[in-house]
Amino acid sequence: MAGYSQDTDRYLARLKRIEGQVRGIQRMVGEGQYCIDVLTQISAIESALNAVALGLLEDHLNHCVVDAVKQGEDAQREKMHEATQAVARLLKS
Amino acid sequence: MAGYSQDTDRYLARLKRIEGQVRGIQRMVGEGQYCIDVLTQISAIESALNAVALGLLEDHLNHCVVDAVKQGEDAQREKMHEATQAVARLLKS
Amino acid sequence: MAGYSQDTDRYLARLKRIEGQVRGIQRMVGEGQYCIDVLTQISAIESALNAVALGLLEDHLNHCVVDAVKQGEDAQREKMHEATQAVARLLKS
Amino acid sequence: MAGYSQDTDRYLARLKRIEGQVRGIQRMVGEGQYCIDVLTQISAIESALNAVALGLLEDHLNHCVVDAVKQGEDAQREKMHEATQAVARLLKS
Repeated sequence: MAGYSQDTDRYLARLKRIEGQVRGIQRMVGEGQYCIDVLTQISAIESALNAVALGLLEDHLNHCVVDAVKQGEDAQREKMHEATQAVARLLKS
Repeated sequence: MAGYSQDTDRYLARLKRIEGQVRGIQRMVGEGQYCIDVLTQISAIESALNAVALGLLEDHLNHCVVDAVKQGEDAQREKMHEATQAVARLLKS
Repeated sequence: MAGYSQDTDRYLARLKRIEGQVRGIQRMVGEGQYCIDVLTQISAIESALNAVALGLLEDHLNHCVVDAVKQGEDAQREKMHEATQAVARLLKS
Repeated sequence: MAGYSQDTDRYLARLKRIEGQVRGIQRMVGEGQYCIDVLTQISAIESALNAVALGLLEDHLNHCVVDAVKQGEDAQREKMHEATQAVARLLKS
């Protein structure tokens, strides 16, 4: 079971809103709106995506990672490395 | 006219693809897929958004900013400050 | 005890190198070197700092966070939230 | 001449302060201070480096890039591409 499964609906609502924001940018570009205003909206979407990512990360730590800790040190170390690599990808993107 | 207006269709196609990626994440979350895989997809979307933002920024510099340079130093400085602030927002998001 | 204490020397060596890189930028600026080359070096320092941060985060998860999990759910949730907030600060900086 | 040459002293002072912050982290690590507090300081240094980078970028746009615009479209396009690539590196670091 995924670590976020208790909050699935809340995440889906947030992702729906982000999808709407992406369509909003399409509309802006289609209308030829000012470049800087489009960039501002892209920043807003990235912040919203980061907020979702941080929520999922915390849920993952509190469920999947805690389960791994109970399975022993090898499972734990693997999960911690995996989570850290996920953070590394977020930092680079 | 927006700085990116010659490439509107190409930007719209990229934004359509990003919209599809956001829907893909909704599907992953709805199916309860593994947290880390969802995080990886969020990183991919942020990279795709950054690529669009960098394209828009370069178009903006080559059109709107160049026009401002020709209008004189006040217009130029204002545009350079505005572009730098847009980069600052991207860095923080 | 800090989560990284087994690797203190390795972290100190990396931070010494980063200090040298910051001094390198001071030299570049003092000599009036090209703006873009200075920016490239700043990006390199930020990547090096992120690599240190990710190492510390993984050590923290494997030691302090694992200890908290063993102390019970309240301690665990607090540590997971604290770690997630640290990642949030890295993402915004 | 570098785009930032009028502000060399101010940039050097800021970089000296950042060098001090890096030494501060070495001290924290040497004393075994808490992982999360070290991460918070790393985030602060990255923000300070980004602020320097944004200042240099704006100076670069107002001097080197404006010069290139006056030299003609090829020089201008090259400089805009180069500046955009520098921003791309900052976003990934």
